[in-house]
Amino acid sequence: MTQPAIILVNPQMAENIGHAARAMLNFGLTDLRLVSPRDGWPNHDSKSTAAGADHLLKNARLFDTTEEAIADCTRVFATTVRDRDMPKPVVTPHEAACQMRDILGKGGQVAVLFGPERSGLTNDDVVLADTVLSIPVNEGFSSLNLAQAVILVSYEWFITSDESKPFIEYDGAAASKKELIGLMEHVEQQLDIKGYFRSRGRRETQTRTIRNLLQNSGLSSQEIQTLRGIIKSLSGEAQSR
Amino acid sequence: MTQPAIILVNPQMAENIGHAARAMLNFGLTDLRLVSPRDGWPNHDSKSTAAGADHLLKNARLFDTTEEAIADCTRVFATTVRDRDMPKPVVTPHEAACQMRDILGKGGQVAVLFGPERSGLTNDDVVLADTVLSIPVNEGFSSLNLAQAVILVSYEWFITSDESKPFIEYDGAAASKKELIGLMEHVEQQLDIKGYFRSRGRRETQTRTIRNLLQNSGLSSQEIQTLRGIIKSLSGEAQSR
Repeated sequence: MTQPAIILVNPQMAENIGHAARAMLNFGLTDLRLVSPRDGWPNHDSKSTAAGADHLLKNARLFDTTEEAIADCTRVFATTVRDRDMPKPVVTPHEAACQMRDILGKGGQVAVLFGPERSGLTNDDVVLADTVLSIPVNEGFSSLNLAQAVILVSYEWFITSDESKPFIEYDGAAASKKELIGLMEHVEQQLDIKGYFRSRGRRETQTRTIRNLLQNSGLSSQEIQTLRGIIKSLSGEAQSR
Repeated sequence: MTQPAIILVNPQMAENIGHAARAMLNFGLTDLRLVSPRDGWPNHDSKSTAAGADHLLKNARLFDTTEEAIADCTRVFATTVRDRDMPKPVVTPHEAACQMRDILGKGGQVAVLFGPERSGLTNDDVVLADTVLSIPVNEGFSSLNLAQAVILVSYEWFITSDESKPFIEYDGAAASKKELIGLMEHVEQQLDIKGYFRSRGRRETQTRTIRNLLQNSGLSSQEIQTLRGIIKSLSGEAQSR
């Protein structure tokens, strides 16, 4: 086992099983297990909502009880959105994902339980888990769709694998200062020709304003070429050549 | 503005607008804006999937163009699941959430754009954004449902307000659940024989207490064998065989 199993306990709507399968596969999870789905299994209604994740449905394993579904696991998380009065550690989806990677890395086997749409997991199912995985939600509107709960857990699992894919500051093709100053001088020259500045004093302050504006725009080389073409076109330089 | 606006650009299915509204409200977001929904607006089909988030639909603001929908914003994020060849910074949902809180805290106005189900945002819409919000997904199955994209962004927004919680270490010697449940059933069976539970009501609560105790004891395989030997010995099973 290299990834957690997702176990849907007594899911009601087959459509939601399909949605959950799609959500899993979006984040690379494929081990889907079902405990006594209300409307039987296999169920054709799951197929359209799986939107291409059909092989997860085909390979899904069916169990009569939660006990059987978790038999091969060494660590089980029970997903809830409200507090349960249970003597167990409670973790966020992110912390759960980190723990799962740790456990799987040490050769353990992990599963995450999700309860039926209407009511969530029973206390008898939560008792079987080691850890409560509590999804933090708006307390005034905490009814989370089954597939939404599955996608949040799957997403946290996935992103803990690419911790080093942070924030990309755009600096691709940043212009050289020579190009930037060439642009500044070009626009100033054309404004001079058009009589924009009117006086030497005004020229000085206006030039500083324009240079700051261009300096701080983070222009690329290509963008500077584009701006110079625009200046040429607006000023009539292009035609006069 | 104290939270980001969620802008659905040309959404196709009204059901998905309802799902998106529910997902927003799960994480406390309420400013929903729609740019030219394909099937018109208001649309009755959005109501059942909103599952109680109806006031978001009723208060949703309708615009003809993306330009009008973002007019009051100072910072716009464009949600994508694949790389766009655009000269813009690219951030994860988590980084976007941190930036949004920072910008809103300084009095700025923030919006997040989501494109239509089939194709995502057009490049013309991405151009209007300051920052690309890229949701990391399984490259082999990257088609993310609209409401799923909305919930991931909303969730990250919500949890950046949440204090982080402690991490619990894994005990590498843990038994499998099959062994653990075997122990639970064994002790319950012997207690039944001895008349320990006295009544059905007491059996239920006592069983839960015992199961939690055993579950949370961090038992190893070897310890479970030991306990089963103890039960056999105490109950007299060993001699009767």
